[in-house]
Amino acid sequence: MKEFELIDKFFRVRSHQRRDVQIGIGDDCAVVNVPQGQSLVVTTDTLVSGVHFPENTPARAVAHKAVAVNLSDLAAMGAEPAWLSLSLCISDVDENWLDEFSLGLQELTDYYSVQLIGGDTVKGPLAVTITAQGFVPRDQALTRSRARPGDWLYVTGTLGDAGLGLDMHQGRADVAPKHRNFLGNRLNYPTPRVLVGTILRRIATSCIDISDGLISDLGHILTSSGCGAQLAVDKLPLSEAMRDSVGAEQAIRYALTAGDDYELLFTVSEEQKGNLDLALTSASVSATCIGQINGVQGKLELRHGKDRYEFEGQGYQHFS
Amino acid sequence: MKEFELIDKFFRVRSHQRRDVQIGIGDDCAVVNVPQGQSLVVTTDTLVSGVHFPENTPARAVAHKAVAVNLSDLAAMGAEPAWLSLSLCISDVDENWLDEFSLGLQELTDYYSVQLIGGDTVKGPLAVTITAQGFVPRDQALTRSRARPGDWLYVTGTLGDAGLGLDMHQGRADVAPKHRNFLGNRLNYPTPRVLVGTILRRIATSCIDISDGLISDLGHILTSSGCGAQLAVDKLPLSEAMRDSVGAEQAIRYALTAGDDYELLFTVSEEQKGNLDLALTSASVSATCIGQINGVQGKLELRHGKDRYEFEGQGYQHFS
Repeated sequence: MKEFELIDKFFRVRSHQRRDVQIGIGDDCAVVNVPQGQSLVVTTDTLVSGVHFPENTPARAVAHKAVAVNLSDLAAMGAEPAWLSLSLCISDVDENWLDEFSLGLQELTDYYSVQLIGGDTVKGPLAVTITAQGFVPRDQALTRSRARPGDWLYVTGTLGDAGLGLDMHQGRADVAPKHRNFLGNRLNYPTPRVLVGTILRRIATSCIDISDGLISDLGHILTSSGCGAQLAVDKLPLSEAMRDSVGAEQAIRYALTAGDDYELLFTVSEEQKGNLDLALTSASVSATCIGQINGVQGKLELRHGKDRYEFEGQGYQHFS
Repeated sequence: MKEFELIDKFFRVRSHQRRDVQIGIGDDCAVVNVPQGQSLVVTTDTLVSGVHFPENTPARAVAHKAVAVNLSDLAAMGAEPAWLSLSLCISDVDENWLDEFSLGLQELTDYYSVQLIGGDTVKGPLAVTITAQGFVPRDQALTRSRARPGDWLYVTGTLGDAGLGLDMHQGRADVAPKHRNFLGNRLNYPTPRVLVGTILRRIATSCIDISDGLISDLGHILTSSGCGAQLAVDKLPLSEAMRDSVGAEQAIRYALTAGDDYELLFTVSEEQKGNLDLALTSASVSATCIGQINGVQGKLELRHGKDRYEFEGQGYQHFS
């Protein structure tokens, strides 16, 4: 099967159709229109088999995750997603695999009203590159660089589940049957926090999505904003599956360091805390306050109640 | 070296800076602004080592070609290029290679005032995915689908050189020393026809770039437009290097079927021929009339002077 037949069969026909797409798949380029008063927000992420997901990951999950990690980046900027471009590198044309992959793609694109506007299929080891685009009202994009001392630190959802899910799948963690499905889904079918991102536009001072683990991604905010932070490890939001499966220290370790959760980490000034609570409640989404930004540049202090929390043999994490 | 250090060292610092980029490399996403009255034009192309370029291709050429093939797609729509996103899959961090690669990137992005606004570096077999974006005034994008019977068929530059260059490099073609540099450059450092593309906006009825070979890409225009064409093989523009290196029949074969030339193939109505000549002359670019569109849907007839030209044992090429 030739490349264009592939694209036609599995991707063009099934894609959600948007009115702002003048020309979609099928010409040299797509032609699309950005609404007036909006900036365009662009991100690119590549997932490589065996590096970013285990080689036996189902095709539907590969597609879901590839789309979700990109939408998660858009969410971290407060953007509303609109269009995707897909580069799919596959070792051979397995129609069953492609069928499952394109269904995984369709599920998320339909849900978020996002249209696949183009792409490329090439022969090689399995890898998926997606460029996702969306809009944000001009000058309302959330960044990593505007956290200020005194701001409160929040995170959506629960932390560490994807990491525990990976360890479960690879036989490194023992999980009760009733939690296996939840953790497997947290690993393979992450939920990009698109709605929360748009809600945070006028409320948060900074925002990032947690892809590399809380400490690492918080580090990006601290470095970009020139601040430090105090983090309350006893406040870290943990799922029931996490609490049932591992001890307290181990749970904190997952929550601090495991990647792939795609929750949003953001800062809010004291004055905006009320607005945040209102907005989250009316949208039925939850976020947990886990600490506070301070002026000690590039230092992260972990606390458990009133005590300093020792982690990796040190109470501080340093970022340059 | 970590991913963000890599991006910082080789890509962020060296990138051309544009005023329409509000946030470039360094946050979760880029934030950019599309000028009012313009549509956004988007394309994605992946080049895989050993598939789209020989494994021993210099890093500077890999970068040049990856950018050029994407800018060529934009040119085929009549778009002015603006931004690139890069996903670079490399097997290991070879600083010399990255240095050469980023210089190759810089040369083209500087020349066309294009900014690298983001990307991803991952570990795996060498592959480069670029998403290129540009603008075209609303409703002026060139497509493949509006060629009409009676329109004249044109092509920029000369044809088949990249194919001959590849055969030269791989020892399948004997080329005189004085032509080796020219053909090597046509293969490794193709020129995207960006200026011609913008000139053609109000003049051409359809346009495509020749990446897969003249017959194949003309087939896309014929299929999309529901037309046929007559092609004069004695009019095909051939370089001096081509004419000196192979016989007449072989040269026609290269010109008809070899890919990677990235010339523009376009159609112009009888009424616009004068405007085309004027515009090409004032921009000092050349294009050659090589045939005419007719109403015989999906059929390509090859002629040599007044005679039918037999090719692959048949005078017709069929497209569905």
